[in-house]
Amino acid sequence: MFGVTILGNNSAIPSHDRHPTAQVVTIEDQILLLDCGEGTQMQFNKYKVRRSKITYIFISHLHGDHYFGLIGLITSMALLNRVDDLHIYGPKNLQQIIEIQLDAAGVILPFKLTIHAITETKMIVDEKKFTVHCFPALHKIECWGFIIKEKKNPRRIDLEKTIAAEIPKSYYEELKKGHDYITKDGTTIVNESVTIPNAVPKSYAFCADTRYDESILEHIKDVTLLYHETTYLKDQPEKAFERFHSTTEQAATIALKANAGNLIIGHFSSRYDTITSFLNEAKVIFPNTKLAKEGTTFTI
Amino acid sequence: MFGVTILGNNSAIPSHDRHPTAQVVTIEDQILLLDCGEGTQMQFNKYKVRRSKITYIFISHLHGDHYFGLIGLITSMALLNRVDDLHIYGPKNLQQIIEIQLDAAGVILPFKLTIHAITETKMIVDEKKFTVHCFPALHKIECWGFIIKEKKNPRRIDLEKTIAAEIPKSYYEELKKGHDYITKDGTTIVNESVTIPNAVPKSYAFCADTRYDESILEHIKDVTLLYHETTYLKDQPEKAFERFHSTTEQAATIALKANAGNLIIGHFSSRYDTITSFLNEAKVIFPNTKLAKEGTTFTI
Repeated sequence: MFGVTILGNNSAIPSHDRHPTAQVVTIEDQILLLDCGEGTQMQFNKYKVRRSKITYIFISHLHGDHYFGLIGLITSMALLNRVDDLHIYGPKNLQQIIEIQLDAAGVILPFKLTIHAITETKMIVDEKKFTVHCFPALHKIECWGFIIKEKKNPRRIDLEKTIAAEIPKSYYEELKKGHDYITKDGTTIVNESVTIPNAVPKSYAFCADTRYDESILEHIKDVTLLYHETTYLKDQPEKAFERFHSTTEQAATIALKANAGNLIIGHFSSRYDTITSFLNEAKVIFPNTKLAKEGTTFTI
Repeated sequence: MFGVTILGNNSAIPSHDRHPTAQVVTIEDQILLLDCGEGTQMQFNKYKVRRSKITYIFISHLHGDHYFGLIGLITSMALLNRVDDLHIYGPKNLQQIIEIQLDAAGVILPFKLTIHAITETKMIVDEKKFTVHCFPALHKIECWGFIIKEKKNPRRIDLEKTIAAEIPKSYYEELKKGHDYITKDGTTIVNESVTIPNAVPKSYAFCADTRYDESILEHIKDVTLLYHETTYLKDQPEKAFERFHSTTEQAATIALKANAGNLIIGHFSSRYDTITSFLNEAKVIFPNTKLAKEGTTFTI
């Protein structure tokens, strides 16, 4: 399973029963949380997200609608006696903000919390089955996008053929990487004859609050599923520019230029009481667009 | 109008669709907010509370379920271009916690925000129509209770009689205070002959998180309506003591000893999925008890 569930799709002021930004990515048996607006832990209850499964949290930037729910989530994890390590990645002031609130409440965490300051474009998580890279977004304050990529060996074992060729199981990992096998008598068994190509590794990119910015394209090229904010409809490019946000047309253009497989749009301004126009406008440029409806899970 | 609307009645971890502590007191044309747990601004939307009418916010203590919604509320007020002054009263670390979060987001408030540190038992607000006093509660960390008292002149004008006695309108304020009127020819018109006794001023006391503590009685004596926390049912006095909370029996006993008119109980532990037992237990000791149901307004 590799999928993303939308917990909040509204910008700034919660309204129209839409909530501030939060998304959970499920990959293998782990949950990664992307942003954590106020009320995210209540959304966990509503959509049956198991907070104990969260291993990583990524905070794009320190505007409140992207992280004001974080301290409450951490506190609840403490009350629920979490024991597993928790790693949070975000802008450098995040650690101090969390720590002074824990201190003021006299909370002693029963688990190890590490808050990593993001300072540059790089791979920030390197797990067995996936990686997470961060890259800069163009917002009013320091802001980061994230891309989560499956790790996959290029080839899969063709079991019938490896058994017939008497290749020992201990060599399977090398085969998956594409290496040939040389038998005891010196014969080369060509990799392609005993393996089959693996499916292309999938990826999910989260482009948090950002102005239209083609410099992110290099980081999200060929992404399987792209989330890009669309705070405004296409008739508001000046407002989007001025407030460091994007329009439907701009998000769809980024998806097109990045050669994304699918696009999710969200972070709708509170000025819009309905959101169907967002979908219609984006689809004109990028047909594979979906609305970030709260509670919806998109398989990647 | 003098009333209180419950926005949250749960302790610590939000659950069973119950929310952390927040209450709005409406008095004359002002709204006072008592505590502001995570999600309070969403509860404002749900229960149609006009945040622009809030003039004072009181934070009992710095456990998250009593104030994690405050920064989001302040930020939203800024986004909505509030212009009126806002006064917040709470423990001394509150100011720093709010300020570093506003700084991190680059927020410049369009209104004047003053965060007052509470340091001692005293009158903290003295408005034309009401006062607010704070008093210490007995919790694990520094914690304050609040009592809001109507201001009323002791007497009301009996208009028929003041006109008949030819008392000038400019003297009415003196009459309301109980003073006699002396005519130009030196005749004394006894106050009681031209005025009628006013209704007793009403009051609302908010005893936030607290262990059973009779020392609060002096501050809430004869209060019209008392809110007292009941985190636990009566069979958990040890747990209540250990965690600096109260049981149903303890809250009802405080109401009884304080000679309160009515009692509201809340701050129910997440361990209880229903709350009717709280009401039944408290009523045995103090019959005029009501449950702090979210969305309910109690007229004081």
